[in-house]
Amino acid sequence: MTDTQTLESAQSLSPQELVAGLARAARAAQIELARLSSEQKAQGLIAAAAALRSAEPAILAANAQDVAAGEARGLSGAMLDRLRLDAGRLAGIADAVEAVAHLTDPVGEVISSDSRPNGLQLSRVRVPIGLIGIIYESRPNVTADAAALCLRSGNAVLLRGGSEAVHSNRAIHAAMVQGLESVGIPADAVQLIPTQDRAAVGAMLTAAGLIDMIVPRGGKSLVERVQNDARVPVLAHLDGICHTYIHAAADVDMALSIAVNAKLRRTGICGSMETLLLDAAFPGSVAVVQALLDKGCELRGDARAQALDPRILTATAEDWDTEYLDAILSVAVVDGLEQALDHIARHSSHHTDAIITGDEAVAETFLNRVDSAIVMVNASSQFADGGEFGLGAEIGIATGRLHARGPVALEGLTTYKWQVRGTGQVRP
Amino acid sequence: MTDTQTLESAQSLSPQELVAGLARAARAAQIELARLSSEQKAQGLIAAAAALRSAEPAILAANAQDVAAGEARGLSGAMLDRLRLDAGRLAGIADAVEAVAHLTDPVGEVISSDSRPNGLQLSRVRVPIGLIGIIYESRPNVTADAAALCLRSGNAVLLRGGSEAVHSNRAIHAAMVQGLESVGIPADAVQLIPTQDRAAVGAMLTAAGLIDMIVPRGGKSLVERVQNDARVPVLAHLDGICHTYIHAAADVDMALSIAVNAKLRRTGICGSMETLLLDAAFPGSVAVVQALLDKGCELRGDARAQALDPRILTATAEDWDTEYLDAILSVAVVDGLEQALDHIARHSSHHTDAIITGDEAVAETFLNRVDSAIVMVNASSQFADGGEFGLGAEIGIATGRLHARGPVALEGLTTYKWQVRGTGQVRP
Repeated sequence: MTDTQTLESAQSLSPQELVAGLARAARAAQIELARLSSEQKAQGLIAAAAALRSAEPAILAANAQDVAAGEARGLSGAMLDRLRLDAGRLAGIADAVEAVAHLTDPVGEVISSDSRPNGLQLSRVRVPIGLIGIIYESRPNVTADAAALCLRSGNAVLLRGGSEAVHSNRAIHAAMVQGLESVGIPADAVQLIPTQDRAAVGAMLTAAGLIDMIVPRGGKSLVERVQNDARVPVLAHLDGICHTYIHAAADVDMALSIAVNAKLRRTGICGSMETLLLDAAFPGSVAVVQALLDKGCELRGDARAQALDPRILTATAEDWDTEYLDAILSVAVVDGLEQALDHIARHSSHHTDAIITGDEAVAETFLNRVDSAIVMVNASSQFADGGEFGLGAEIGIATGRLHARGPVALEGLTTYKWQVRGTGQVRP
Repeated sequence: MTDTQTLESAQSLSPQELVAGLARAARAAQIELARLSSEQKAQGLIAAAAALRSAEPAILAANAQDVAAGEARGLSGAMLDRLRLDAGRLAGIADAVEAVAHLTDPVGEVISSDSRPNGLQLSRVRVPIGLIGIIYESRPNVTADAAALCLRSGNAVLLRGGSEAVHSNRAIHAAMVQGLESVGIPADAVQLIPTQDRAAVGAMLTAAGLIDMIVPRGGKSLVERVQNDARVPVLAHLDGICHTYIHAAADVDMALSIAVNAKLRRTGICGSMETLLLDAAFPGSVAVVQALLDKGCELRGDARAQALDPRILTATAEDWDTEYLDAILSVAVVDGLEQALDHIARHSSHHTDAIITGDEAVAETFLNRVDSAIVMVNASSQFADGGEFGLGAEIGIATGRLHARGPVALEGLTTYKWQVRGTGQVRP
């Protein structure tokens, strides 16, 4: 079928029928995929990357359609920027797909093995999860990134991108599928919901037994909808309300450079600092807040923080629970480690929290007692990222407590099975 | 407060208020618990076991109340047997709690560590999940087992047992709490819903943010309700529709003894065989079905299986998807490995499936291609059990794909956090 025929036939189905049909095809292809070698899957991704490069004119033309429609609809400048592709960005997308091909395949790894007194040999072996659903918003690069990570780990994927990027996503998907097919990878393993019907999201969320895990990538409202409506297990990342606590024994220069970087390097990422806790005994507090203010950051403080600089605005109760994703920072002064831990326990979103200190015992206490996916000592919270953690890429940063936590890449897209080898044992 | 006062005040609350109050107290206690050493937690369990032994008269009296009420309500003999305690069974419960004290504490284990080119030191360290909700049916031993496993791994637990065991559960809970308190363990970490109100189950299932994971232990209807209604992550075990495939190259004596054991050792456990697949080229099929029939097992077969023995009844389409938990077995004849794999893919509940074969290549293919939590070669599926797997105990056998799979014990009750140690790094 041509793409137009595919789209027309998709539009004639109910959202449930559409999702079920794509999911069944993907599951069948996943069984084939699971039997391919690691090398074959890598060759598939290399071919998909090449196909993305070859399809540059078609992809950029499709993207121009989306951008024009977005402008007509009055999308914000930031949204249009996330949506827009150019030759350089597309080359980056293709390079990222190829980079995933070179990551170590986790499938087949023996996690543990044991021999029982009765002679049974037990091992736990990593296997793909099955079919992963990805629900995401405007960035078209997610189409390629998510497909690559799922395929590398032997999973099929059902992609549902934002309607504002539908032409771009279709063009990226078509190119990747063509690349995969050219080297004999079952192309049905990568499915994209071709319609713009929002009901397809609901149909994915309730497709228990057809979709094994859903990863929402987008803003708070998307993630909350997914968590409320899903009957399929979800690997969610919620807000990053990240704290940096500058302890009394922090080096002033280090504290200053980390605070500025953690807040201002990029304000829109989930690992950016949203609350700064200054120890009352830290001698560099005035210097730190002045540096942030001088760089254009708005500070909202409690009364003791406001005493540090007249430019600091008054924080409301809400500020301590707000993810600004902007050049705004809430600042509180605390009396020592316990008060800092208490503030973090009450207000952290359990994404990433950091301490700056020269006192190793205090650092270890902080590492042990802060219950967040990522806990850092003497480093910028902006390092909270799968690439920076050496995972090669990431499908998201999980703030839930089960299955995987923090940056999730290939290993988080696998599960395991127990293999038991006997010689005729029966249970007494 | 006395137990009577606790119960009266609990009955005056809505189910949501009751669950929220118990969960908040448990979460606060869990923070204390997480700071105790492994040795302190072990001492707590040893004291709880001793308290269970000392409380024998009270626990058996409470149990007699439940048994009498159950008899009056006309509970089945099997249910009454599961409910009934005696001195021997109670001693077994106390011993099991003490055994958990001696299991290795998974908390603090470093799962992986890495050093990045920029000097950041990364490690993933096991931590407790937090508050585990256990919803279970009539066996009162679950109260003690589940509490012990959760405490050993640093978790708080909120228990909700079946109403038919409410007096037994309260007495077991009271004894354990008293034992824990005697050695300074925060007793609020082990909470039992004291009322018999079924609405408390619904309140637990929707207590997102208060309960971190729910483990349902019980029949199909309970597990299905939990999976439908839960807004909290669930670690479920569904049916065990377990297959044993006897390959052409199976040793006849081994096949016979494994088949009889897998079906008949105990028919009521989830790892018991429910479907036997006989290879058309296996020479011992008649001997195997005769042995099962002679031991009183009802066989329901397809036409080719029925040709093996006139006593074999006709299987309906439903039989291939039925967990009998009884001395009934469905039997099909298949032409080789691929047909067996296909039958298993269509009908297995992905709990435990086994092959009997003397052909190592066939065995490896089966191990790789069967997508179940446990895949066995030349062993009885009745070994599907945390104790038999060397885990010391189990909180359940998970048939989902995320977080943990197969027998789940202490490790499955933990998650991890990333600890990052820097020396002032900022992200470029």
